[in-house]
Amino acid sequence: MKEQDKGKSGLTRRNFLTLTGEALVAGGTVLGMGSAADALTAKPAPAAQNSKMAAEPFWGQHQGGILTPQQRHTYFAAFDLPDAKREDVIGLLQEWTNAAARMTAGQTAKPFAQDASQPGPDGGEALGLPPERLTLTFGFGPTMFESGGQDRFGLKSHRPEALVDLPHFNGDQLLDTRTGGDLSVQACSDDPQVAFHAVRELARVSYGAAQVRWVQAGFMPGYGPNETPRNLMGFKDGTSNPAPGNPHDMEKYVWVGHEGPDWLQGGSYLVVRRIRMALEHWDRMSVGFQEQTVGRHKYSGAPLGSKDEFDPVDLDANDKDGNPIIPDNAHVRLAMAASNDGARIFRRPYSYNDGVTFTSERWPPWRQGMEYDAGLFFVSYQQDPRTGFIKIFDQMSKLDMLNQFVTHNGSGIFACPGGVAKGEYIGQRLFSG
Amino acid sequence: MKEQDKGKSGLTRRNFLTLTGEALVAGGTVLGMGSAADALTAKPAPAAQNSKMAAEPFWGQHQGGILTPQQRHTYFAAFDLPDAKREDVIGLLQEWTNAAARMTAGQTAKPFAQDASQPGPDGGEALGLPPERLTLTFGFGPTMFESGGQDRFGLKSHRPEALVDLPHFNGDQLLDTRTGGDLSVQACSDDPQVAFHAVRELARVSYGAAQVRWVQAGFMPGYGPNETPRNLMGFKDGTSNPAPGNPHDMEKYVWVGHEGPDWLQGGSYLVVRRIRMALEHWDRMSVGFQEQTVGRHKYSGAPLGSKDEFDPVDLDANDKDGNPIIPDNAHVRLAMAASNDGARIFRRPYSYNDGVTFTSERWPPWRQGMEYDAGLFFVSYQQDPRTGFIKIFDQMSKLDMLNQFVTHNGSGIFACPGGVAKGEYIGQRLFSG
Repeated sequence: MKEQDKGKSGLTRRNFLTLTGEALVAGGTVLGMGSAADALTAKPAPAAQNSKMAAEPFWGQHQGGILTPQQRHTYFAAFDLPDAKREDVIGLLQEWTNAAARMTAGQTAKPFAQDASQPGPDGGEALGLPPERLTLTFGFGPTMFESGGQDRFGLKSHRPEALVDLPHFNGDQLLDTRTGGDLSVQACSDDPQVAFHAVRELARVSYGAAQVRWVQAGFMPGYGPNETPRNLMGFKDGTSNPAPGNPHDMEKYVWVGHEGPDWLQGGSYLVVRRIRMALEHWDRMSVGFQEQTVGRHKYSGAPLGSKDEFDPVDLDANDKDGNPIIPDNAHVRLAMAASNDGARIFRRPYSYNDGVTFTSERWPPWRQGMEYDAGLFFVSYQQDPRTGFIKIFDQMSKLDMLNQFVTHNGSGIFACPGGVAKGEYIGQRLFSG
Repeated sequence: MKEQDKGKSGLTRRNFLTLTGEALVAGGTVLGMGSAADALTAKPAPAAQNSKMAAEPFWGQHQGGILTPQQRHTYFAAFDLPDAKREDVIGLLQEWTNAAARMTAGQTAKPFAQDASQPGPDGGEALGLPPERLTLTFGFGPTMFESGGQDRFGLKSHRPEALVDLPHFNGDQLLDTRTGGDLSVQACSDDPQVAFHAVRELARVSYGAAQVRWVQAGFMPGYGPNETPRNLMGFKDGTSNPAPGNPHDMEKYVWVGHEGPDWLQGGSYLVVRRIRMALEHWDRMSVGFQEQTVGRHKYSGAPLGSKDEFDPVDLDANDKDGNPIIPDNAHVRLAMAASNDGARIFRRPYSYNDGVTFTSERWPPWRQGMEYDAGLFFVSYQQDPRTGFIKIFDQMSKLDMLNQFVTHNGSGIFACPGGVAKGEYIGQRLFSG
């Protein structure tokens, strides 16, 4: 990669703008921005004054966007590589690394050079915006390694055992246009335009090598850092998530270690699911029924029969008639490690809101019409999907009472390589291995 | 409306939560929230400490969400009234008024009363979130007054002359599922979940009377209050908008005055357009071509040939060969008041981002595949659409070079009544007139 592009430039999208306003077109003379940029000294963003200015590190042991405190917005994209050769994929990953390092620092995707006869080095819709904690997280799908029996890029022998094809789960209604992909890119940022801009720039430099297969935008409500956010069903979501601040749990449940291939160490497996919620239907259920379905109290978030959100979930507690207080098919019971031989995954979900589409509900309260295409863009990281998402969701897909209100219509599994050291490109150790 | 619901309650969604955590389920006893709420004294939200806490006024001369400084997110919904009678519509507007007054103050949609045997008084997904400057803006479409020759609600004689059906514009590709509607509700808030929650609650109380026809979510990037935001084409958008701080312009261009019917005075006409942008195509154009198309410089926002964003647009300036510096079919030229007999409208647009759909571009650079369904959710207010949007867009739809990159596929026109006084319901003067 072109290290010099990065090293020289303290030119962020924000001070770039000052420059264009005051100097770039002064006297009608258009300056090449390269030299203007050289003249600027690097100034760290004033993060202490404004957290919006904060930039997340791009280089490091792990990719950003996994344990990074969750940003408010995401734009996820899965790409296919229909005509690419091995060297095209390498070239693409090199370009993506360069652009990602720049954009996460609040810079334009490529170094700025004013040349009106060419497309801009950056689409420009994030000019003047700070980094807004942008992270870009990259993953490789099973079809990168093998597709239709073909060893497309000479990577077949490197396919990790754990990178299985997801099985068909009970109730799956997966749409081909929302499922799979050779490569995944997840942009997360506190500004939706910064997140979209980042993916769009990566897509732009991929013309000819990669093409967009499917995308999903998502958002998080503005709860405080010590509050568990509520999802669109109105319940707190994430109470029992492993704590990113607990290194032991992260090593055990999230990061690939020595059991995995070298290129994947310090990485993780991503499983995403697009889960539409029958919100109109849910909204007509009694609060008591909703709580029995979830297994938690709606307002406090406490497990049924308990008082505080973080009270332990007692799966063995019975009511006076001897029935379990937390029903056998309650969501929380089926999701718990104790019900899944200790399996845990790290969830980093977003809500999504894609308008309305025509839907029929063929059961009481019967209705048909335009219904919300909204719900959860489920994002999970795990050390091994076989003992993570697949293990947990296999029984949930059959038994969870919540299934009555949700439909999984999109899905993907990707191996996210470890972090990138300066001078490397994303996934380099896979291609040099 | 039930004024007592509002008068009593200083209980916001935020202090409600403290209450549930600490007292509501204490000792296993579930308190009715009515009495608990009564015991609380009203505390104004600490707006000075945290602007997120700020609540926009609901009652007043004008509806909120028109001149309100633009919030970061919107959720717009158009509703139909397929089976409603006049009294159903009145009842609905009364319910909507109550709920809107509560939610814009950061309260639950209906007064809280814990009864697990019933659906909740509020779906709950905004519990614990501050108002985030929520506004709700209501409008009446032409079909409220007359549809298929029928005087559905006894309102036909009250249809304002200016509430015309929008003509078919050159290039219109309007989808029935994104166009029209008897009623419009636009929620705007700095939190996307607060905006969606508000519309969803209004939809919920409308079961049986109204049904959702189409919706559109949108967002604004996080530019500062004195910066013109960039749209998804990377250009500053809104430089020449009339200033909300200029009362003369607002009276002249935005608010309906004595020329309109009594119920509409202090109101405005809303025209919305869903404008998809061919972003992949746009991204491949040279910056110079983009600037000729728009008529402004991309980076500074200045009119072509000028230096500063707010420099006047000189439509008569020619280059040394005698050609206009701002091309005849440049977007900015055709949109200007000077090109439209002085017509101006107040724009309050959002960007939208609805994933990707299969698209063919049958011209160079030829491509087909999954392309962004993203662009502009154009929102405009005006005193009279005949001399506002229709006047301006008629020639733009035929001549604007930007049309090569945009497709209008959704549309609506609505008369937004004046603001609501306490004790009134939205549009009351229409039904009592």
